[in-house]
Amino acid sequence: MKAVTETFTIRTRGKGTYEITDQVARVIQASGIRTGTATVLIQHTSASLIIYENADPSARTDLHEFFERLVPEDEDYYIHTAEGSDDTTSHLRMVLTRTSEVIPIADGRMALGTWQGIFVFEHRRAAHQRTIAVSVIGA
Amino acid sequence: MKAVTETFTIRTRGKGTYEITDQVARVIQASGIRTGTATVLIQHTSASLIIYENADPSARTDLHEFFERLVPEDEDYYIHTAEGSDDTTSHLRMVLTRTSEVIPIADGRMALGTWQGIFVFEHRRAAHQRTIAVSVIGA
Amino acid sequence: MKAVTETFTIRTRGKGTYEITDQVARVIQASGIRTGTATVLIQHTSASLIIYENADPSARTDLHEFFERLVPEDEDYYIHTAEGSDDTTSHLRMVLTRTSEVIPIADGRMALGTWQGIFVFEHRRAAHQRTIAVSVIGA
Repeated sequence: MKAVTETFTIRTRGKGTYEITDQVARVIQASGIRTGTATVLIQHTSASLIIYENADPSARTDLHEFFERLVPEDEDYYIHTAEGSDDTTSHLRMVLTRTSEVIPIADGRMALGTWQGIFVFEHRRAAHQRTIAVSVIGA
Repeated sequence: MKAVTETFTIRTRGKGTYEITDQVARVIQASGIRTGTATVLIQHTSASLIIYENADPSARTDLHEFFERLVPEDEDYYIHTAEGSDDTTSHLRMVLTRTSEVIPIADGRMALGTWQGIFVFEHRRAAHQRTIAVSVIGA
Repeated sequence: MKAVTETFTIRTRGKGTYEITDQVARVIQASGIRTGTATVLIQHTSASLIIYENADPSARTDLHEFFERLVPEDEDYYIHTAEGSDDTTSHLRMVLTRTSEVIPIADGRMALGTWQGIFVFEHRRAAHQRTIAVSVIGA
């Protein structure tokens, strides 16, 4: 049994979803752990994590549009807007998705379904560097 | 300390919530682990996991209706509808709930509250077989 | 490698967010674990967990108002209202946020971002005592 915690960064190009499944898989492979879990956490409050359909990009187009409508940028009641109209909405969209996600590991690989990928969901209009922490625990 | 990863399947009968607390408890019991965590992940992008009130079924009736209204099937902007009007909405409803849930284990049992149960939330109209992966880690 | 599971309680004063980062940190510190994960679970279905911006309180003001609007208390279709107009809405707001959150540990500390705090999100109008379970696993 052992535990390792690593971090990696990705560059986003503003609002949208960015797959990180391969980066997480590399941390697991480097750990040598065959059975256990991978815990993934994004160290930000204006971007989040989702596990989502990674085959047909149209699913992600609908996702992006859905969040623009569910949490619109132009609500009169917002007060946390010092950094722009995408400031408070980034936190609200983050809180409706995930900060951490944990994936079982079997036979040295993540036990994900066929169509599942791990994505960073960037909620800010501007490009950002985002840091992801990964802990792998097991044997 | 040890780690085990198992999977089990359930049959859903279309949209709704299906309790799986007992199936997860059986994986923990079989592992012999007394202190640690159980990580539960549903290997699908059109069904999700929730921990929800498991005593009064009316709480689940309101939940189902709430999601029909929050993510209606008939929005004009949807493009990911190749499999029907419940295609893109299944992904959107999944992303608002959970893919993985992790439960602390103490004294060989999940440290859940009195009214908490683990449920699969099926978002497709048709019956489906759903696979759930469970990793138990601890001593 | 070892695993410990502890619980602690907090008193809420009704609807709102209550930071528990320090209480979780104390469980980690007492465990002596330097590398691994902390799993946090709230044992209730009318309160939830979030990791949220902990610097500017205006972000939390917007969060509270957003949930009042996204899940209003006065919908005609609600049937799970035996305990009041905040009964079913507490479950619905809980299911849109989190019951469990898992944080990687590196160098004996949670690998959280600069602005991230762990909060209990109380959804009931009345004050409540809430129990949080924490499992720390690692070396």
